[in-house]
Amino acid sequence: MTRVHVLGASGYAAAEAIRILQAHPFAELGTLESASHAGESLADHFPSLRGSALAFDGPGSVLAAVTKGDAVIMGGSHGIAREQAPGLLAAGARVIDLSADFRFDSSAVYGFPERYRDAIAGAQLVANPGCYPTASLLALLPLVTFGSPRQLVIDAKSGISGAGRNPTVGALFSEVYGDVRAYGLNGHRHEPEIDRELRGAGIDAPLVFTPHVVPIARGMLVDAYAIFDRELDADVVRAAYAAAYADRPMVRVLAADRAPSVTAVVGSNRAEVSVSVHGATVRALCAIDNLGKGAAGQAIQNFNLMYGYPEECGLDG
Amino acid sequence: MTRVHVLGASGYAAAEAIRILQAHPFAELGTLESASHAGESLADHFPSLRGSALAFDGPGSVLAAVTKGDAVIMGGSHGIAREQAPGLLAAGARVIDLSADFRFDSSAVYGFPERYRDAIAGAQLVANPGCYPTASLLALLPLVTFGSPRQLVIDAKSGISGAGRNPTVGALFSEVYGDVRAYGLNGHRHEPEIDRELRGAGIDAPLVFTPHVVPIARGMLVDAYAIFDRELDADVVRAAYAAAYADRPMVRVLAADRAPSVTAVVGSNRAEVSVSVHGATVRALCAIDNLGKGAAGQAIQNFNLMYGYPEECGLDG
Amino acid sequence: MTRVHVLGASGYAAAEAIRILQAHPFAELGTLESASHAGESLADHFPSLRGSALAFDGPGSVLAAVTKGDAVIMGGSHGIAREQAPGLLAAGARVIDLSADFRFDSSAVYGFPERYRDAIAGAQLVANPGCYPTASLLALLPLVTFGSPRQLVIDAKSGISGAGRNPTVGALFSEVYGDVRAYGLNGHRHEPEIDRELRGAGIDAPLVFTPHVVPIARGMLVDAYAIFDRELDADVVRAAYAAAYADRPMVRVLAADRAPSVTAVVGSNRAEVSVSVHGATVRALCAIDNLGKGAAGQAIQNFNLMYGYPEECGLDG
Amino acid sequence: MTRVHVLGASGYAAAEAIRILQAHPFAELGTLESASHAGESLADHFPSLRGSALAFDGPGSVLAAVTKGDAVIMGGSHGIAREQAPGLLAAGARVIDLSADFRFDSSAVYGFPERYRDAIAGAQLVANPGCYPTASLLALLPLVTFGSPRQLVIDAKSGISGAGRNPTVGALFSEVYGDVRAYGLNGHRHEPEIDRELRGAGIDAPLVFTPHVVPIARGMLVDAYAIFDRELDADVVRAAYAAAYADRPMVRVLAADRAPSVTAVVGSNRAEVSVSVHGATVRALCAIDNLGKGAAGQAIQNFNLMYGYPEECGLDG
Repeated sequence: MTRVHVLGASGYAAAEAIRILQAHPFAELGTLESASHAGESLADHFPSLRGSALAFDGPGSVLAAVTKGDAVIMGGSHGIAREQAPGLLAAGARVIDLSADFRFDSSAVYGFPERYRDAIAGAQLVANPGCYPTASLLALLPLVTFGSPRQLVIDAKSGISGAGRNPTVGALFSEVYGDVRAYGLNGHRHEPEIDRELRGAGIDAPLVFTPHVVPIARGMLVDAYAIFDRELDADVVRAAYAAAYADRPMVRVLAADRAPSVTAVVGSNRAEVSVSVHGATVRALCAIDNLGKGAAGQAIQNFNLMYGYPEECGLDG
Repeated sequence: MTRVHVLGASGYAAAEAIRILQAHPFAELGTLESASHAGESLADHFPSLRGSALAFDGPGSVLAAVTKGDAVIMGGSHGIAREQAPGLLAAGARVIDLSADFRFDSSAVYGFPERYRDAIAGAQLVANPGCYPTASLLALLPLVTFGSPRQLVIDAKSGISGAGRNPTVGALFSEVYGDVRAYGLNGHRHEPEIDRELRGAGIDAPLVFTPHVVPIARGMLVDAYAIFDRELDADVVRAAYAAAYADRPMVRVLAADRAPSVTAVVGSNRAEVSVSVHGATVRALCAIDNLGKGAAGQAIQNFNLMYGYPEECGLDG
Repeated sequence: MTRVHVLGASGYAAAEAIRILQAHPFAELGTLESASHAGESLADHFPSLRGSALAFDGPGSVLAAVTKGDAVIMGGSHGIAREQAPGLLAAGARVIDLSADFRFDSSAVYGFPERYRDAIAGAQLVANPGCYPTASLLALLPLVTFGSPRQLVIDAKSGISGAGRNPTVGALFSEVYGDVRAYGLNGHRHEPEIDRELRGAGIDAPLVFTPHVVPIARGMLVDAYAIFDRELDADVVRAAYAAAYADRPMVRVLAADRAPSVTAVVGSNRAEVSVSVHGATVRALCAIDNLGKGAAGQAIQNFNLMYGYPEECGLDG
Repeated sequence: MTRVHVLGASGYAAAEAIRILQAHPFAELGTLESASHAGESLADHFPSLRGSALAFDGPGSVLAAVTKGDAVIMGGSHGIAREQAPGLLAAGARVIDLSADFRFDSSAVYGFPERYRDAIAGAQLVANPGCYPTASLLALLPLVTFGSPRQLVIDAKSGISGAGRNPTVGALFSEVYGDVRAYGLNGHRHEPEIDRELRGAGIDAPLVFTPHVVPIARGMLVDAYAIFDRELDADVVRAAYAAAYADRPMVRVLAADRAPSVTAVVGSNRAEVSVSVHGATVRALCAIDNLGKGAAGQAIQNFNLMYGYPEECGLDG
């Protein structure tokens, strides 16, 4: 049994982590810290936590509560972890950070279990990947055996919860409803994260990345296209995907003509992947829940690995 | 031709007023003032104005620009009109205020044309009704000939644009999506407005009013129930509704078994009403666009009456 | 451990029952019969069953498979249970019928556990209530101690999955999207079901029932208004609701100013209820998942009672 | 003034054409034929036609009514035009077919005004393009001056109304809601149409086309990626797009960092296009209303050209 504190607990990903942890057989909820909502009931903020009696504690409460061996999930805005993780680590906690703060920092292990399972198991500080990188890497990494393509195109469609719970005009219902909106046309902060990991794995190609907001709250579909210089054999490619995910419980590889479904993965830590070959172009689709495998679910998967629990523990997918 | 300025021009209702005015044969757009977005392009804020070259002017610009005979539509937050209308009136403008500031003030005419057409025609200052009152009054006022019911129940369902464009957590896509949410259970500021008008017309009964947010951006359906002490004759009631709206171009009375449709009125200034009798209870349904007949459309209808243009001018419903 | 067969297994409620049963500790899935989809994979029909290897069997397969002590959930269209339940009962199965076939038949027990827990425990044939009656009765039955009101008004808002999976124009995305639609203005088949149960409990009053479709897939909110001849004491009414649901694990009574949330109950068997008093009118709101407490969840709750399992078993709410 | 009949008038695109024609200054609505809904009121089918007194006529009624010089819009299912267009043409009508029947038939002119304006003007039979081809060609055709790319990828997101009004499980609200669904992974019938036109214009490259359904009723966004063998100059590419659409009133070219908006074009015949260059890859986005520029709007644009009316007449975009 491990005590898990959550810092920056009033965001969507944090609420999803808390929901998962409530039913986790080896986790005990510790302090839930929110700078902006101290003293308020979580049930008043999140319908999924309506039955609970949990309340937010104020600034500094996690640091005061943490003892050696505890886990801390940092769900706050970018910048918070950079400030607070050192103190928590010094107090003996192991930290999983949902923000981008440590994703490019060598003091943290990149928390992508389908590639770094062993390193995560030994990590004190895990930088949980972004949602777009998670889905994109799941779609593309099995191509590593085919050498580098000439060009990569990633066309991603995400629910708006990825924009967080801090209110902005662009995330209002009236703005998102009825629209399909490309954004970040000048570059998105997730692009270098995808790029770094692909190159690290040996896939070295220019990348065009186009994120879109679609009118759903949760879920994400990534269509990744790898354009090679030669035609690839469809059977060989499909076999590579099947092999890559053979012992990966969270990834379901579908037949080439079956589309991953967002509704099939929302609420779970599951990813659905399908791949097809069109001459020199490979098209790989991946659906995840941006708050599940793209954030909180993956954080719990990392927690399980760090503390020696079964990888799927508490995760229904 | 009348010049129309818009003050508080960056909200949803103001944008809809501007959209209507652009195609209005007797209106010429004047200054569009926004305290928070001065210098920005309207096309960047509102998809419906994408083709225009309009830009917001800063604080004080309407007052500086206004000349005798101009019209000013005040679309800003509550409180602004209270401050600024006196100066605009003094400069010779006629003012239509979309906020609640003057709805209980005898210096303004209540801008509900289906009841106050003549007074509006002569008004210098018009307080445009709230969206809930507009739909509720259209549903209930024809009952005036039947005396006061024992009890009134109004169960209203509104799109979230009625909450405005100022970002709040409750108006985020992720919060509204998938939910049907009653609110204001302790009372809503529109309730006294409905009550005052009903009593003024001679319908004197206790009112229970329940507003709800439904996951649509625009549109509103009001189900109004009037419980009388005696059974009413269905034919007589239906005839009263038909008579009440016989020369009201904006109100379409449907057969008793036909439901008003939100999608039939969104984008227009039209209201759909249907009424049925169930023993001692009358059920009257009314659908409007909360930004149309419930705000900007009605403002233009008032503008038409004030300046002697045909009531429907520039309004496709 | 009890074997549970599902007949008419390709509808939304049946799929939800199968999803719940897969995780139920005392249920073992038996034959899943679909006349229209025999041989097809359930994973191809329902995203929530994507990971399963289940397939539909053809007509007659449940009857052939059933043995004494088995349970059968009949999820099919109205009319099927009337034909097939007698044979299944004769074969020794206990039957829970989701259709309306036996709701007015004295050979079945009305499967509303909050009122008929004991009778359900001994039943061979249970007629599962409709979704509107379930939410309406939960909202109104605690009023029984206050005598009969003068008038009842039920204004209900439902997700479209209640219309079933048989494709009709009215249930198309393009028709439901953006609209709030009252229907059944001439009467809805659930109205006599509500009326019968209210009168049976001693609440004898004329009822006006207005169902609406709102643009959500799952979930339902019922606003019930009871107009009495006298003012009621708010504290006494609230105490009656608290008492009525004190030992009912599926019903959460909220404070009077808190609105039941559809998103808080979707995916669960939970109901949320809140009640407030406005002079002589009581307003009671109830939110359920129309496929959960309004159909499949309640069926499993009944199953638990019939077979002596804990009432909440396998139900997360 | 030209009389316009509509055959197959009960579909979404036909209803949109009727809505546009009602306000068209040079069109007079003729016979509206629907095999399945003869005698029924259009107002009962389409909220946008709620105020009209129009009714469907039965099979054969357009052929009986048509006289020399009339126009017929065929909005029916695929296969109908193949049967009925010859008779209508023989009767002296000019025919615009919304189905795929004549898109690969040399007896018809392909009704894509941005490329075939002159041929359309003289045509007796126009095959209106599919919605995906319309948006894809608008996105890609200006690239013709740069030679053929090595590979084309088109990732398209469409509202579900493109699937028509014939009810299917896949188009139900409960199935579309909350999902983002790729389909046609084995090939879509619009792919050869896109391919034929691109090659005809001199863009000869393998194409991977991935259509998706997103949870909106109307509107479409196409992201087209052209991968060249060499880097392109961004200024030159942008200049080519600006030049291509300089005198095309229906196409609005945005700055490279501005995303086309679905909500900005829904309800209009407008297309929004933006293009950016990323090394050897050009990314061009195009948003249209699938029922507007993708179907009915383009049909009226073709009608205007055929009968010598101003190209934009009756079209607000």
